[in-house]
Parts: sequence; C-alpha cells; structure tokens
Amino acid sequence: MRDLLPDEVALRDGAMAQILAVYRRHGFLRIETPAVESLRLLLRSDGGENEKLIYKILKRGEKLATADRPEDMADLGLRFDLTVPLVRYYAHNHARLPQPLKAIQIGPVWRAERPQQGRYRQFTQCDIDVLGVASEVAEIELILATTEALAALGLKDLTVRLNDRRLLSAIVAHCGFDPARAGSVFIALDKLDKIGRDAVATELRETGHPAEAASRLLELLGAVATPAALRGLLGRGVDESVWRSLERILETVTTQAAGRFRLAFDATLVRGMGYYTGPIFEIQYGDATSSIAGGGRYDRMVGKFIGRDVPATGFSIGFERVIGILMERGAVPESEGARVALVFDDTMELGPVLSLARDLREQGRQVVLEARGKRLGKQLQDLEARGFRRIAVMGADGTIEWREPRGAGAGETGA
Amino acid sequence: MRDLLPDEVALRDGAMAQILAVYRRHGFLRIETPAVESLRLLLRSDGGENEKLIYKILKRGEKLATADRPEDMADLGLRFDLTVPLVRYYAHNHARLPQPLKAIQIGPVWRAERPQQGRYRQFTQCDIDVLGVASEVAEIELILATTEALAALGLKDLTVRLNDRRLLSAIVAHCGFDPARAGSVFIALDKLDKIGRDAVATELRETGHPAEAASRLLELLGAVATPAALRGLLGRGVDESVWRSLERILETVTTQAAGRFRLAFDATLVRGMGYYTGPIFEIQYGDATSSIAGGGRYDRMVGKFIGRDVPATGFSIGFERVIGILMERGAVPESEGARVALVFDDTMELGPVLSLARDLREQGRQVVLEARGKRLGKQLQDLEARGFRRIAVMGADGTIEWREPRGAGAGETGA
Repeated sequence: MRDLLPDEVALRDGAMAQILAVYRRHGFLRIETPAVESLRLLLRSDGGENEKLIYKILKRGEKLATADRPEDMADLGLRFDLTVPLVRYYAHNHARLPQPLKAIQIGPVWRAERPQQGRYRQFTQCDIDVLGVASEVAEIELILATTEALAALGLKDLTVRLNDRRLLSAIVAHCGFDPARAGSVFIALDKLDKIGRDAVATELRETGHPAEAASRLLELLGAVATPAALRGLLGRGVDESVWRSLERILETVTTQAAGRFRLAFDATLVRGMGYYTGPIFEIQYGDATSSIAGGGRYDRMVGKFIGRDVPATGFSIGFERVIGILMERGAVPESEGARVALVFDDTMELGPVLSLARDLREQGRQVVLEARGKRLGKQLQDLEARGFRRIAVMGADGTIEWREPRGAGAGETGA
Repeated sequence: MRDLLPDEVALRDGAMAQILAVYRRHGFLRIETPAVESLRLLLRSDGGENEKLIYKILKRGEKLATADRPEDMADLGLRFDLTVPLVRYYAHNHARLPQPLKAIQIGPVWRAERPQQGRYRQFTQCDIDVLGVASEVAEIELILATTEALAALGLKDLTVRLNDRRLLSAIVAHCGFDPARAGSVFIALDKLDKIGRDAVATELRETGHPAEAASRLLELLGAVATPAALRGLLGRGVDESVWRSLERILETVTTQAAGRFRLAFDATLVRGMGYYTGPIFEIQYGDATSSIAGGGRYDRMVGKFIGRDVPATGFSIGFERVIGILMERGAVPESEGARVALVFDDTMELGPVLSLARDLREQGRQVVLEARGKRLGKQLQDLEARGFRRIAVMGADGTIEWREPRGAGAGETGA
C-alpha cells in the first residue's frame, strides 16, 4: 500500500470526476458499501484466487478469547472486489432501490498480493453494474458508457473484445471436455495471452483433461474468427438466443461507436471469475495485451442471496492501470494553472492579505498564503518550481507587487 | 457499518465537492494515505481511547503460524483517524512535499465502537492540516477555511470556540494540581458539557486529584469569561507569546468573519486528544452543544518520527454529523432535476433511442433508458415517483412522446 502525493491525487480526482460525470449522464447512480464485509460472505463468492488474498480482521474481546483455532480468529474481512459487496448490498436493500438498479461504485479494495511493479495491496476499482435487466441492452449500455468514460480521459485508441460464456461452454463440450469441469478449462484458457498455446495445452493435460480435447480446443480457437464461422461448427449446441444477443451487441455497438472505438468478437476471451454466465468483455488500450477494463454477465449470483435469480451484468475499469497510462503521458491536472501565491509579512497585520485572498478566491482562484522568509529570492524560485503562475509580494506598507514567473512565458513560447 | 443508498451518496458527494472546492481555493492540496497502517504506529500515537477501538488485521501464512499469543496475531490495523497517518505520511515523504504542507484529507476511518444512534464503525473524516507553520496565521487560515466550507453547505449559524492548551496547563498548575498529571485533569474536564460540574469534580477526586484543586478549577472556569480576566489571574504563569497569539487569532478572525460566524474564547474547551500543544478550537452549529468540527495545534507529533519538531495544526469536520444535519433539513442533491427517462421498446432496433440519449447527454442531461414493461401506466408512475421530471416514451414507429409528470407542476405550485 502506498501514499499518494498531491499531484497524483489531483490527477486521480480529476480522472474520477470525469468518469463519474459520464456514468451519471448514462443514468448510473453512485452507491457505497463498507470496506469491511463478513468473511462468510467473502469466502462463498466464487471469487476464485482472490479469496486466498483476503485481509482478515481479528475478532475482539470475548469472541477472540474463545477462539481456539487460527481459522476461528476472524469473522470479518476487507473486500477484495466491488462485485461481491454489490450483490450483498442489492440483496439487503433491493426494496429501497430503483428497479432496475444502475449502480456506480468507486472505492478501494484490498488483496494481500506479493508486492510487484504496478500492483498494490490497496487499489481503486471503478465499476458500473446493471441489476434487473436480462436483455443485452444492458451490455450495450455498459460498453457505450465505459468507452465514453475512457475516451473522456483522452484514451481514444480502444478495442473492446467480446465473447459469451455460453459459447465457451459449448466449445468446451464440442471439443470433448467433461462439461462438469469446464471451469478448470476456462482457468487454463484464460492464460493464453500470457503463456501461449503450448503452455495452455500442458496445463490442460496436467489438470487431467484429455490431450485430444486440448488439441481440438486450441486448433478450433486458432481457426475461428467470426461468430458465423463458430456457428457453422457448433450448430445446434448453442441456443438461438445466444447468437441473437451476440449479434445485437456487435451490430448496435459498432453502429454507435461510429469509428470512435473498435469492437471485435474474440472466442478466446475468458475472464477470470467463476461467476460469469453470459456475455463477457474487455477493453484494451493501444497495442497493450493486458486490459484496462473488463466485465460480464453474472445472472446467478444474486439468487444465492435472495432465492430468486436477478439478471446482472457489470463493467469494471482498472483505475490504477488507467492512472498509470495518464501519468506516463505526463497528464497534468487542470486546476494547476489557477493557483496564486501571496507572500506576506507575518510581523504585520493580516487584514490586507486576507482581504486580497478573499477577493481572489471569490473569483475562483486557488490562493496560497506564504509568510515571507529570510531569503525572498529563493522563496520565489521555490514557488515558481512548485508551479505557481502568479505570485504577489505584499510590502510592509500594504503595497502589492505582482511577479511574472520567469518559467511561465518562456515555457509557452518555447514549447 | 452501513450501506449508503443512491440519494444519500448523491448528497454526500455534493457536500464533499463543495467542501473540497472551498479548501482548494484556500490553497490546500488533497493527499491520500492507505486505510491500513502498522499497528506499532497506531498504538504509539497518543490517540487515547481510540487506540482501544482499532480493528486489527490477522497476520498471514508463516507469520501467523509462528504467533503464539493473541497480541502477536496482528501487525496491521485500520486507521482510527486521519491525523496519525498524516504525521507518518509527512515523516515518510516530506522531501517530496511542498513546504509548508497544506493538506486536505477526506476518507473513511474505522473504530470498533458499540453501535449507537448516529455512530458508525466506518465513518468519513474530512481534515485540513498545516505542517511547517509555527505562526498562528495557520490557525487563522484553518478557521476561515472551515467556517467558509460549512457555510457553503448552508450551515450559517456557526460558533467557533477557541482556547489554548498552554492556558489550560497554566490554569491546572495555578489551581494546585500536579502538572505532571495535567492529562487526566483534561480528560475529566473534557466531559464538563456532558456530565456537569459536580460529576467532573467527583471524577477528579476519584482519579486521585486534590479535592481543593478540583473546587478551585471549577470555580475559576465558572468565573472567567475573557482572556483579559484570565491574564489577571494567572499573571506571569503564562508566556507573553501565548496571549499575543490568542489575541491575534481573536482579532483577525473576528474582523474577517464580519458577522458571518461567531468566534468566542472559552477557557473550558479541552478537546479529547493527548497530543495538542497550543491553540484548540471547535465549531458548534445552532444551539447544539456537540461540535461539528474540531482541531488544534500538535507541534510535537512529527518530532517523534523524524527527530526534529515540525509545527503542525489541523481542523477536522465531523462529516457524518454534517450530513446528518443536511438530511434532517431535507437537503436534495442538485443534480436530481437533470434526470431524463427514455422508455423504449426492447423488441425494436436500439439505434433511435441510443441516438436520442446521446444528444441529451451531450447537453449534460442524465439519461436513463428503461425498457417498456407490460403496464406502461404503472411504469410511468414509478418513474415519476423516482423523481424523473422528464420522461419520453418511444413508439415502435420511432415517434417520441414527451410526458409531463403530474407531480412536477403540482409540486411547484403547491409548495
């Protein structure tokens, strides 16, 4: 976990505000759940590997004193994603929520991962979810809203990859895998981009799947490029409604995208989580292979809580990755230019400098008061280095001298 | 800990944005620290009672396996306030931070308190702090910025109470208490508003202080109303600079307040935390006795980390209490009026409704798409009840019929 310095916070706050503004215009409403959930909830969530990375909270007082085994020492944990808490939230509050619910969640999640470049133990996720809509119109809205949010941040070279878990299941059955073990086929296949075909084939064999099925699967996925080709292969193994939904998403989103981003069917797209039941999608930026956003439909998760299934689908922006891209580009938060420094003499009455500050603030300026130090020249240099474009020095007699930072003009003409 | 429904989140987000805007205009920069800190840090922080309420995080793997006693089971904890993490942050990052640092922090903190009305185990704090300014100009800025932030939320009936821990120490010595035990006198005195004079006197006697000192203290505090009167009593027991600083704050802030809020010296103000070293202050709203914001100077806390003292002072808004007041007043988030519902036929092509939605969003509208249900009348009523002021129904032939919610006009004239 790490500290965020003011410049990074300003960049993050700006990005978050832009994402939120787009999502609000798309009719989503922000909701909030606590950081801490019951361990029982977190551990029964189909969260896969993430469940092993939960930070558990030590019981207190009496409850701790009577706990004998390490696994009884905790009954709460920090959330590892925003989907599991959302489903709990919906189950708990659905009578008081608009139906369908279009929810925005932005907040920190925690995973006890080994520290590595670009991975943090506390990181921010930014999700939108639609609960209560079975139609693929929900996926279409998620994709349009998320690509628009990313474009608002200046990320324009976007490719959306689309697949459907029901197609993947049909492919797995078609290739001769045991359908009951489709989950472990998906886990191996999910690594295709990272480890390559041979390693995936090896993993499939080593987890006890027939070598022949593995070969057929990799051959099929290497050959199939379009839904039509796949349809020819799988025939009646897939319900007609799956094809219709896939085609409606492809056609509608491609028309709406109007060249602003690309949408491509990709039969090799898997997504990690065990809970997906329908369309799944990811967004890639530029020519990076890793995704900056991902999501999918999880129609059977709410049912585990309230006894009746509620259709649900969501899209999550990898906020840290997006911020990483913006920082690499040298993005500067907008407000910086608006900052004004007033250097004053702290041995004098403060009235005049406070009144001037007040006037400037009423004009929307961000005003920093700085007591005049012993070395005014050095102090002014430091203020310029900190990015102040306007600096005023108040004299002991109440006069005001405005300084033009040397860097300001030169930077503009020299660029 | 609790879930926040969309309306409350919208109200909180709006309030937070207004507070942040005021603080930014006052030259403060937002910083962020992780939710999780080392337990060693949290436990040596002079945090008083709050240290007992820390949520501790269970060690993992090897480290847990080799922990024998309950007190060895955890080495991390959730932060219980934003001041302790700020000081750790400053010590860690000061070479990369502007000097002086004017920091904003907004974020959740956690305390394992017994649940009760208006108290939550996860709650939001909103702090500003100035690190590196010894002059009382820092306190003046904190008070002006915080009262302006609260006024921006519509909370105009504000009283700032001001005292100084150095005066309190002198009073305690003057009354005959053991100066080395001033801390426990402060703890008892802090309850004066809640439990009254007699109960405070009893607590002082029961914690081993001389009964005579307790009587003198309560008599003195009952009689003294102005700094001048107190100065007459304490004479040379207080350094001249303390009086000068107090008077400069009182005069400057009163002039700047220009009737927008009240500022009053209050010799009975104590503030709970052990780490205060100079001016302390609280804000009351209306005629409530409890405060909605509080803070003070803590010049010796940074020194514990970096070996040299750095002057520091901060002001914390009790965000949950402020939101409570806004909700009681029935405050409505601004954006609600901007929401538009488009009811469409999901069996038709989506192009026309998506294009209309896009046009409206480009005008800044928040647009919700709603698939037409079996009972349109009921559906329109529900949308009106959810607060939509504009609703369009798209016909199967692409026509658009705009509906004027019945409630809208009536509400405006009937109010």
